[in-house]
Amino acid sequence: MEILVQKYGGTSVANIERIKKVAQRVIDAKNAGNDIVVIVSAIGGETDKLINMAKEIDKNPNCRELDMLVSTGEQISIALLAIALNARGYDTISLIAQQVQIYTDTSHTKAKITKIDTRRLFKEIKKGRIVIVAGYQGITEDLEITTLGRGGSDTSAVAIAAALGARVCEIYTDVDGVYTADPRIVPEARKLRKINYEEMLEMASSGAKVLQSRSVEFAKKYGVTIHVRSSFNENEGTLIMEGEENMEDVLISGVTYDKNQAKIVIIGVPDQPGIAAKIFSMLAEKNINVDMIIQSSSKDMVNDISFTVPKEDLNLATKTMEGIVEEVRAKTFECNDKIAKISLIGIGMRSHSGVASSMFQVLAAEGINIEMISTSEIKISCVIEESQTEKAVKAIHKAFNLA
Amino acid sequence: MEILVQKYGGTSVANIERIKKVAQRVIDAKNAGNDIVVIVSAIGGETDKLINMAKEIDKNPNCRELDMLVSTGEQISIALLAIALNARGYDTISLIAQQVQIYTDTSHTKAKITKIDTRRLFKEIKKGRIVIVAGYQGITEDLEITTLGRGGSDTSAVAIAAALGARVCEIYTDVDGVYTADPRIVPEARKLRKINYEEMLEMASSGAKVLQSRSVEFAKKYGVTIHVRSSFNENEGTLIMEGEENMEDVLISGVTYDKNQAKIVIIGVPDQPGIAAKIFSMLAEKNINVDMIIQSSSKDMVNDISFTVPKEDLNLATKTMEGIVEEVRAKTFECNDKIAKISLIGIGMRSHSGVASSMFQVLAAEGINIEMISTSEIKISCVIEESQTEKAVKAIHKAFNLA
Repeated sequence: MEILVQKYGGTSVANIERIKKVAQRVIDAKNAGNDIVVIVSAIGGETDKLINMAKEIDKNPNCRELDMLVSTGEQISIALLAIALNARGYDTISLIAQQVQIYTDTSHTKAKITKIDTRRLFKEIKKGRIVIVAGYQGITEDLEITTLGRGGSDTSAVAIAAALGARVCEIYTDVDGVYTADPRIVPEARKLRKINYEEMLEMASSGAKVLQSRSVEFAKKYGVTIHVRSSFNENEGTLIMEGEENMEDVLISGVTYDKNQAKIVIIGVPDQPGIAAKIFSMLAEKNINVDMIIQSSSKDMVNDISFTVPKEDLNLATKTMEGIVEEVRAKTFECNDKIAKISLIGIGMRSHSGVASSMFQVLAAEGINIEMISTSEIKISCVIEESQTEKAVKAIHKAFNLA
Repeated sequence: MEILVQKYGGTSVANIERIKKVAQRVIDAKNAGNDIVVIVSAIGGETDKLINMAKEIDKNPNCRELDMLVSTGEQISIALLAIALNARGYDTISLIAQQVQIYTDTSHTKAKITKIDTRRLFKEIKKGRIVIVAGYQGITEDLEITTLGRGGSDTSAVAIAAALGARVCEIYTDVDGVYTADPRIVPEARKLRKINYEEMLEMASSGAKVLQSRSVEFAKKYGVTIHVRSSFNENEGTLIMEGEENMEDVLISGVTYDKNQAKIVIIGVPDQPGIAAKIFSMLAEKNINVDMIIQSSSKDMVNDISFTVPKEDLNLATKTMEGIVEEVRAKTFECNDKIAKISLIGIGMRSHSGVASSMFQVLAAEGINIEMISTSEIKISCVIEESQTEKAVKAIHKAFNLA
């Protein structure tokens, strides 16, 4: 029998009725002749509820204890799903990270999976059981509980699929698949049938909230095909898989936006070797994820260096900046959290020039000022004023004929 | 420094405000120069909420999965208390059963502690940390999560106190201590200053809900003094400890009632050796706790055997009875769940006769019919009709001058 890994997100298990529906889907897949391993997120809203309780006690709760707290969310949902499946007569066992032995590094609240022990999983599968695994969580070598960061259950699912040698990992969510743009902003956005790992990686890291990008890295590394689909209907979703360039014979796969970024500018940085290394290693020490980095051309032996960080890291980054400004003898720094990053993604860009300039023209025609630009082989990102986000996405989607 | 073990029940941590108050109490005890280990129950009502969710899916949810589910309650409360203490600047770590390594047998939903590994506990204490441990839960040798049954956190606390060699285990609850009767029924009931382990054992197993009786057994076995007190005031509570007879120089320590019992009568059991053993081993196999057992005197070579079980086991017991009746060739069986057990407890009974007959006279004077009687050295229990409970408790409390 083939092992099929399914992952159900928080909205798919938001209440008892939906948990029963998920159980039915799992049963259908089992009856179709598969060995089933299911990864489940916390009941929708549960993780936020727990975090809010913690923040009611302490605005910056101890990270180790926060992981202890929020990891209960998945434990609740796996137990309920296992109860539902056992009630239907299907021998089912739920397992938390410590029982599977999903090891991570020690970075609480954003840990990375380092190793998955498959012995217990295979043991249960061989008994003919349906196995339900808590997503989002891991343990360290010292048996401390960690969590993988927002959307971490996707990564749990793909990593388990990879460890078990499963070919496909189905990710059930509340949308039908991956779209050319956020359908809430662009109603004519089109669902993609297939998308390349690299494109999906760029889309995920550029604000498309369908999947945690780390899950796509895992899938790419281990050749697992991800099938993103809705748990509310039977439609085929989007396949994320290895593929030739232009899988759908298009230049651009989609346009994404990310309002969860803030910009920091360090002004008057002396133009000396090693300065940038010093700045960004001081930020890395605090576990702050820096996204775009831009250094303006040097004049009078001083530079301005701009970069973006996730909004939730801005407080910590700001505190760290004071030390950095002093350390590198910069003049000062400024922050702006009213920005958005608009990205255009397509593996077809590799062999086409002129995509970037077309994007800049579209934004210019809409009167939108570009504050930062960064490009990769298959992506162009522009930082603009947050309030212009919707206008920019619509205009770009239309200009590149993505509908 | 001396190790002080404190246990806080569900009402003591029912909301964020109360959790902060518990943190303050823990800090006070720490500042008084103790090493502190705190055991916490789930937030009040949380366990019931989880059980109800499970029962919404399946009336008889899989026990192994039920433990997986409900053990999250304590994990949430220990994390929140640890966050509160860390926020106050007190280095604190919370630990679940698997991290401490609190081993139990494999009886899901009513497991018994078999071994507590103290290495991790002592390691954290030596770092000067306050240690918060999840009550109510354990793990099996196979890393399965178990729970200890209702009130199991008391047992967790006393077992940990015993394992750590602590002299005192403070049990914080929503009542001031142990009373001569339930103050809701008998307003003039008196708080006991001290009570002997054996009396407390009889009281706990007779319906006094202050403590899980297993916790008292542990305390007795390892010589741990339990101090039952309220988390809502600073009053001294009741000390449960080794003591000479008549610690308070009284005949009777209290009167208790238990409405959570059901009576089963097996009618027409052949009077042969080994029959009773067969009946009760078949019930024990199903993990049904049998309390009082009474065999009527034999006539015509057949007996009636009556016994009581907890109401929640009645369904299972009834199912088992069908097989038993057939197996032992009895005539039939009857059930009655509208009963209550009234018990009079006092270590002073040992040296006094006539207590039982006085109790029967009091009940007779109130017109209350006695359905079953059982006695021990320090306890007399009568099963009566449930609706007569309050009347019986009041009359007995008064007749024995317990106020």
